[in-house]
Amino acid sequence: VRHDQSHYGKIYLVGAGPGDPGLLTIKARDLLAVADCVIYDYLVNPEILAFAPAYAELIYVGKHGKDYNWKQEEINRLLIEKAGKYDLVIRLKGGDPFIFGRGGEEAEALVDAGIEWEIVPGVSAGSAVAAYAGIPITYRGLSSSVAFVTGHEDPQKLRSSIRWEELANGVDTLVFFMGVGRIREITEQLILHGRSKETPVAVIRWGTYNDQETHISTLNDVADLVRQKAVEAPALIVIGEVVRLREKLRWFEANAKTEWDVAAESDEYTELSI
Amino acid sequence: VRHDQSHYGKIYLVGAGPGDPGLLTIKARDLLAVADCVIYDYLVNPEILAFAPAYAELIYVGKHGKDYNWKQEEINRLLIEKAGKYDLVIRLKGGDPFIFGRGGEEAEALVDAGIEWEIVPGVSAGSAVAAYAGIPITYRGLSSSVAFVTGHEDPQKLRSSIRWEELANGVDTLVFFMGVGRIREITEQLILHGRSKETPVAVIRWGTYNDQETHISTLNDVADLVRQKAVEAPALIVIGEVVRLREKLRWFEANAKTEWDVAAESDEYTELSI
Repeated sequence: VRHDQSHYGKIYLVGAGPGDPGLLTIKARDLLAVADCVIYDYLVNPEILAFAPAYAELIYVGKHGKDYNWKQEEINRLLIEKAGKYDLVIRLKGGDPFIFGRGGEEAEALVDAGIEWEIVPGVSAGSAVAAYAGIPITYRGLSSSVAFVTGHEDPQKLRSSIRWEELANGVDTLVFFMGVGRIREITEQLILHGRSKETPVAVIRWGTYNDQETHISTLNDVADLVRQKAVEAPALIVIGEVVRLREKLRWFEANAKTEWDVAAESDEYTELSI
Repeated sequence: VRHDQSHYGKIYLVGAGPGDPGLLTIKARDLLAVADCVIYDYLVNPEILAFAPAYAELIYVGKHGKDYNWKQEEINRLLIEKAGKYDLVIRLKGGDPFIFGRGGEEAEALVDAGIEWEIVPGVSAGSAVAAYAGIPITYRGLSSSVAFVTGHEDPQKLRSSIRWEELANGVDTLVFFMGVGRIREITEQLILHGRSKETPVAVIRWGTYNDQETHISTLNDVADLVRQKAVEAPALIVIGEVVRLREKLRWFEANAKTEWDVAAESDEYTELSI
């Protein structure tokens, strides 16, 4: 808690990982345990917020809420305001703060305001969600490159900011974040620019959570499957030959709760409803 | 420790993160604390091995050792052998096991042998090492895509397995793992296929460790700089406009030890010499 009113506190931009609380880093948990204030997003698992002290101020700035949609500039101002009030403020983001998390923009705002900050990288959904679906995003002989791409742009911009003709075959594995709402445009562009229609595709919803669900299809058919099954965000799209390995390597959905989860629930974790 | 000799134990393929022990996941640390055997690589920070119990058998299978170079098939056989002896075996890899870690191949070998396994994803060097150098690998308006590529192939294969003409401009940020020994060929290929010679490049050695060093140059000049400064592995190469953000966002090298590190060293961590 803030004692010295003559200076600003410090802000940590912290990655919360993809969902499974076990995938939080030690550093993130240790910092959460002494946080005065936690400003968190939609995709942060509520179980992770339970690591913060009871006295900590928890502020939800998720953009998928039904109430109010925070603008980035408003979040930046909130961070600075809270750094003026508290010693230790955590800006908690799903996955990794620097992979489509706008962590860079927030860090810039803090530098401009002269506020001390650090980043605590997190486990990215791009690899972990695929791994929980039994898909290694790289694999010797099948994939020696993987791209993370944001699908969360307005359709106009999606067409212009991605160089589809080079992206389509430029890397072996393609991972689209936040792209399920635009999966038809994404897959059409990739096929138009020469990626095989038969390329396997996985759409993984609520990855690393106990109710993770994985849909397997091809570049040609996946948009229809997603519409038919009404698959909605949050979901990760993985495109490439490595998706075939899931048949052999799936492990998580087969035994939804691991021994570790059960042990962790019984002694370490507390449920938090928000 | 193994009691029931009638069955095989379980193997966890665990990501150790990029180096900073604080970037280990909670799940990895909890599993290490009860491991009977840890089979680990070159790029695993020895401080992380200290989380294993004193009785655990620690086996080094790193490929950069001066003594013996383990072949992948030998490591696979070793995993199976140790699963026959112990209840809980950890296969510990730098970064994330499924990002150029050959985790997929090891998982396949375990499935073939009928051994129970799980994966514990880790924080990838691809984002975390860049973050510790003050570089967000994605940034709205500057980079909406990032590719992770392995530079660790024989020169013959490097030329054939990477589609340079599409990769060069297909994504905004390019991150090469294990590529410092082949940086001249990598940069020449990218320039040859149309990436601007003036594209900023960062070469980050021992990223997230206290002695992290970062070299900044351009696609045109970086190979000379690396030769001149004799930069060797382990190093990550980050290519793209986002590298410019480091000028404003560098934080880690400025204050090599954070308060958190000092606190952690004093009460939680023990040094382990191996």
